[in-house]
Amino acid sequence: MRRLQDKIKTEGKVLSGNVLKVDSFLNHQIDAQLMKAIGEEFASRFKNLGITKIVTIESSGIAPAVMTALILDVPVIFARKKKSLTLVEHLYTAPVHSFTKNETNDISISKDFITSDDTVLIIDDFLANGQAVLGLLAIIEQANAKVAGVGIVIEKAFQPGGEMVREKGIKLESLAEISSLNDGEMTFVEESVEQ
Amino acid sequence: MRRLQDKIKTEGKVLSGNVLKVDSFLNHQIDAQLMKAIGEEFASRFKNLGITKIVTIESSGIAPAVMTALILDVPVIFARKKKSLTLVEHLYTAPVHSFTKNETNDISISKDFITSDDTVLIIDDFLANGQAVLGLLAIIEQANAKVAGVGIVIEKAFQPGGEMVREKGIKLESLAEISSLNDGEMTFVEESVEQ
Repeated sequence: MRRLQDKIKTEGKVLSGNVLKVDSFLNHQIDAQLMKAIGEEFASRFKNLGITKIVTIESSGIAPAVMTALILDVPVIFARKKKSLTLVEHLYTAPVHSFTKNETNDISISKDFITSDDTVLIIDDFLANGQAVLGLLAIIEQANAKVAGVGIVIEKAFQPGGEMVREKGIKLESLAEISSLNDGEMTFVEESVEQ
Repeated sequence: MRRLQDKIKTEGKVLSGNVLKVDSFLNHQIDAQLMKAIGEEFASRFKNLGITKIVTIESSGIAPAVMTALILDVPVIFARKKKSLTLVEHLYTAPVHSFTKNETNDISISKDFITSDDTVLIIDDFLANGQAVLGLLAIIEQANAKVAGVGIVIEKAFQPGGEMVREKGIKLESLAEISSLNDGEMTFVEESVEQ
């Protein structure tokens, strides 16, 4: 998605440890117009798949997921990282390991909102090691629901998450694919292909 | 806002301790069409105030804030409850006390995204004791920015937050005002006035 790629090039900052900081439009400050365009793009790439629910993880997945949900006209559910006071039981739960933070936390979704009748689209802001997507897939499996696919705003294609999802035969659509963040420079997959 | 009030009546559940559970459309599962209508309503109530930024707090404030930002065509920034790895310094920070959880946590916003040139609209899902809004107001004050007002999806009008905001002379718009959650029944402000 050209508009997103241009935004990442203009405003993204490459930090040490392969961290791409996009907090001016995605992770902290949010560009609502760009989120709408992202929602339209995901809706177009996943149309006609019978999607009944979108799931994401708080917090940075919420904006692109809600915009996609608006266009596909389905509800979105955000998995919680911490158990809520008003959601203490009756939960699907899965562990998600963060390699960056070196810690494992449970994510959870109420059993009220995903059933075996659902066809679920996963939306998230980043795909790197794939642990968050694996956690959401585990929850969808617990609910005996179907997976329509995975939509990612920014995939770090040099990390194993994308391959892990594709190996499962799951449709994966990443709107921007970064092939390298070496030496403080970002390279996109299509650029490295063109060279 | 009638559509919101009807949704709360139909799907909201009153739990012990004055807790109103609205996780089927606002706090966990999100009704994207309703969020769009909420965004349109906030945009209408806060138009022509020169708003340049919207701020909210992760996670449940994000959906209504992003929809409002889309219509007002300004960026939205969500305050983080936990310091991010990529946002470790250069922050405005304020404590927010949760009476429900009986704990105090810092919220923070990067200094990059609010300046003294900004006129800021605060959007949040709930207003009860007002601690989250006070935290956001403290951050806006640290940035020497102006406050355009506070937009709340559901105000618990029997708790002191609304009065605290109005006493400061700040424009407060709550789309649904609940006057009582006693005995498992919810009463809305306009209903109790009509009686």
